[in-house]
Amino acid sequence: MVDIASRVWNHKWKIDPIVRSLIDTDFYKLLMCQSVFRNKPDTRVTFSLINRSKDVPLAELIDEGELREQLDHIRSLSLSRGESTWLRGNTFYGKRQMFRPDFMEWFEQLRLPPYHLERKGDQYELTFEGSWPEVMLWEIPALAVLMELRGRAVLDTMGKFELQVLYARAMTRVWEKIEAMRDIKDLSIADFGTRRRHSYLWQDWCVQAMQEGLGSAFTGTSNCKIAMTRELEAIGTNAHELPMVYAALAENDAELAQAPYDVLSDWHEEHEGNLRIILPDTFGTRGFLDKAPDWLAGWTGIRVDSGDPAQAAELAIGWWKERGEDPSEKRVIFSDGLDVETIRTLHEQFSDRVNVSFGWGTLLTNDFRNLVPDDRLAPFSLVCKAVSANGKPTVKLSDNPNKAMGPEDEIERYKRVFDLEKQVAQEVIV
Amino acid sequence: MVDIASRVWNHKWKIDPIVRSLIDTDFYKLLMCQSVFRNKPDTRVTFSLINRSKDVPLAELIDEGELREQLDHIRSLSLSRGESTWLRGNTFYGKRQMFRPDFMEWFEQLRLPPYHLERKGDQYELTFEGSWPEVMLWEIPALAVLMELRGRAVLDTMGKFELQVLYARAMTRVWEKIEAMRDIKDLSIADFGTRRRHSYLWQDWCVQAMQEGLGSAFTGTSNCKIAMTRELEAIGTNAHELPMVYAALAENDAELAQAPYDVLSDWHEEHEGNLRIILPDTFGTRGFLDKAPDWLAGWTGIRVDSGDPAQAAELAIGWWKERGEDPSEKRVIFSDGLDVETIRTLHEQFSDRVNVSFGWGTLLTNDFRNLVPDDRLAPFSLVCKAVSANGKPTVKLSDNPNKAMGPEDEIERYKRVFDLEKQVAQEVIV
Repeated sequence: MVDIASRVWNHKWKIDPIVRSLIDTDFYKLLMCQSVFRNKPDTRVTFSLINRSKDVPLAELIDEGELREQLDHIRSLSLSRGESTWLRGNTFYGKRQMFRPDFMEWFEQLRLPPYHLERKGDQYELTFEGSWPEVMLWEIPALAVLMELRGRAVLDTMGKFELQVLYARAMTRVWEKIEAMRDIKDLSIADFGTRRRHSYLWQDWCVQAMQEGLGSAFTGTSNCKIAMTRELEAIGTNAHELPMVYAALAENDAELAQAPYDVLSDWHEEHEGNLRIILPDTFGTRGFLDKAPDWLAGWTGIRVDSGDPAQAAELAIGWWKERGEDPSEKRVIFSDGLDVETIRTLHEQFSDRVNVSFGWGTLLTNDFRNLVPDDRLAPFSLVCKAVSANGKPTVKLSDNPNKAMGPEDEIERYKRVFDLEKQVAQEVIV
Repeated sequence: MVDIASRVWNHKWKIDPIVRSLIDTDFYKLLMCQSVFRNKPDTRVTFSLINRSKDVPLAELIDEGELREQLDHIRSLSLSRGESTWLRGNTFYGKRQMFRPDFMEWFEQLRLPPYHLERKGDQYELTFEGSWPEVMLWEIPALAVLMELRGRAVLDTMGKFELQVLYARAMTRVWEKIEAMRDIKDLSIADFGTRRRHSYLWQDWCVQAMQEGLGSAFTGTSNCKIAMTRELEAIGTNAHELPMVYAALAENDAELAQAPYDVLSDWHEEHEGNLRIILPDTFGTRGFLDKAPDWLAGWTGIRVDSGDPAQAAELAIGWWKERGEDPSEKRVIFSDGLDVETIRTLHEQFSDRVNVSFGWGTLLTNDFRNLVPDDRLAPFSLVCKAVSANGKPTVKLSDNPNKAMGPEDEIERYKRVFDLEKQVAQEVIV
């Protein structure tokens, strides 16, 4: 029987909204948002979309009107009662009331601030300006909308069965990856794929396949909405955004050198246990660890997000030993450019010495490589970053010079302040 | 929105019926049934299930109670009004009113006759006895039920996503076959996969994928129900059953030698054009053609269903030339053990000299090879054949000694009567 009401209802939608919830976002965004709301509420920031894949002509693929409709729809969203209840009532990382009442009250009233959209050649300029805790929540939905609209543009010309087989192939690929990881002993892996997913429904499928296929080795998802609906752990801690903005706010070189530690000092007051994860690569991992205060060595672990992952993990292990810490009690979370082979190799290399976890992103939730002609569904390198704070430009160096961003002279200044030695370039996969 | 009524309704079914329509059968069964109804209505026959794949222990895989429920359900079926309208009103092979009013009246009243089921070791003995036009309609549904119940037994232990990926893999495989055939110029191919399909829904999917993927190169399906619902051509002419029963009814060797031609003489009166297709291999192709009357050479084509297909096609081409016919005006239909490579090879070899068509069966609708552990979903060789007529045993020789059936002494007699030289054995794939 056809459910007539459903069918009529579905036809009433003016658009098929890509983002349907304010918590269809990464968990760490909310943790960071609460931290910013508490520590730097008055900071003004500009976030900007940056398409590092110049060969993907977003403005030619995506209709500006459709893009505006999707972004406008996101501006109409507010936290639902059930979402608010989940954030207030759920246990995150074993802790109740992770989100404080004042933050929740603010979040319940929130609508996302305006955006600025302009076509520039075959790309879009998309920026968000305003108060940091508001603007920062644009990052994930903006990326999700652009990734999915680009996908829809490609899927638009395909036949019904061609489409079904496309997804059949993609499902088979994900499942084969899952099957290939089943024999990895004590695997601990989470979904970190929200920002560059093929689509929401696809991410949701991948997460459920991981649940069935990996059982307890699958530890959760970074996506709050999916964590809520699938009753999974929400996973994530903090990101480069915090040190980038703190650094931009520094008045001089001494404050700049101190900025990354100020971030973690604020974090230290707010969080404990498995939420105390160092992300050391914003301005170069080696320099960061060399100058780190001893209390940081007491943190639970480190997240490796750029450069050669094995080298960064070795660096961390050496650093813990130097500071009198036992690496076997520490956790290393790998989250950059992962796929089954890198996961297996890193696990073999490090699981005897530290606790190893994986935050698997793009190649879990968007591995549509070589599934259509000209590879027009392959994931591409799109980011949405804080580019300025209180009028001053931000900089990111990372452990891979191909991921560096910011004005040239500021990059040179940061390299000097953070003693950044010559880096080895890594291909940016996604 | 959940359609509550649908959900409740679905829970009311005592079983999930495998065969839900009397026309979920091969089109040639209905054509032959009408011919038998007209020419040999009083013949008593016995049909029997024969599992040539002894390594598939059907009685261990399939619960006898479930099998009985499915067979009983088939006995409860009768022609629906829409089905009857379609058979009466549709154009088959360009002809209106293919099915005569007296036949349709009989068919509208028909319920399938009783079955006899008994477990013998790890196999089932399943036989049907009664009047030929009734009993013959058991063949296809009986095979479909056993194939699908065997599949269900294997699928029963699989998880939800494991199942989805199983079908994703199978879909991808079918689609890749379709893609691989797209560049075959003037391809003409039909679905002949009802009897050994994985399931009804799966056959229906394969047919629709062929429609979208091959366009006009896909000429139709042998399955009447699917032809009706998908508005496709119903394809098929006649089968070994006719000469086998006619031969069994022969009173002496002279009548026996004449039996295969009597069949086609009856057919000649009833049908013309593309329905005049010779199936020459029941008792050996070479002998059949050598002794055939000249009027048979005037028929439209020949179906190659056993033995070396290229050899049989060459035999037919030579025969047409001998009889003064132009092979380029004739049609050769290949229907045995086909897959993409054999289709491509045979097409390349013969499409310059004759009109070539393909009736693609098991490896279209049941290629689940190597998709589950121990290959427990691989197609296997199950047939349901007339084993006696008016108390006398039937015999089939075919162009492949591995497909021969009947009592040993009768096989020897038939070989003598039909001048069957030594044959080359071919592996029976399915």
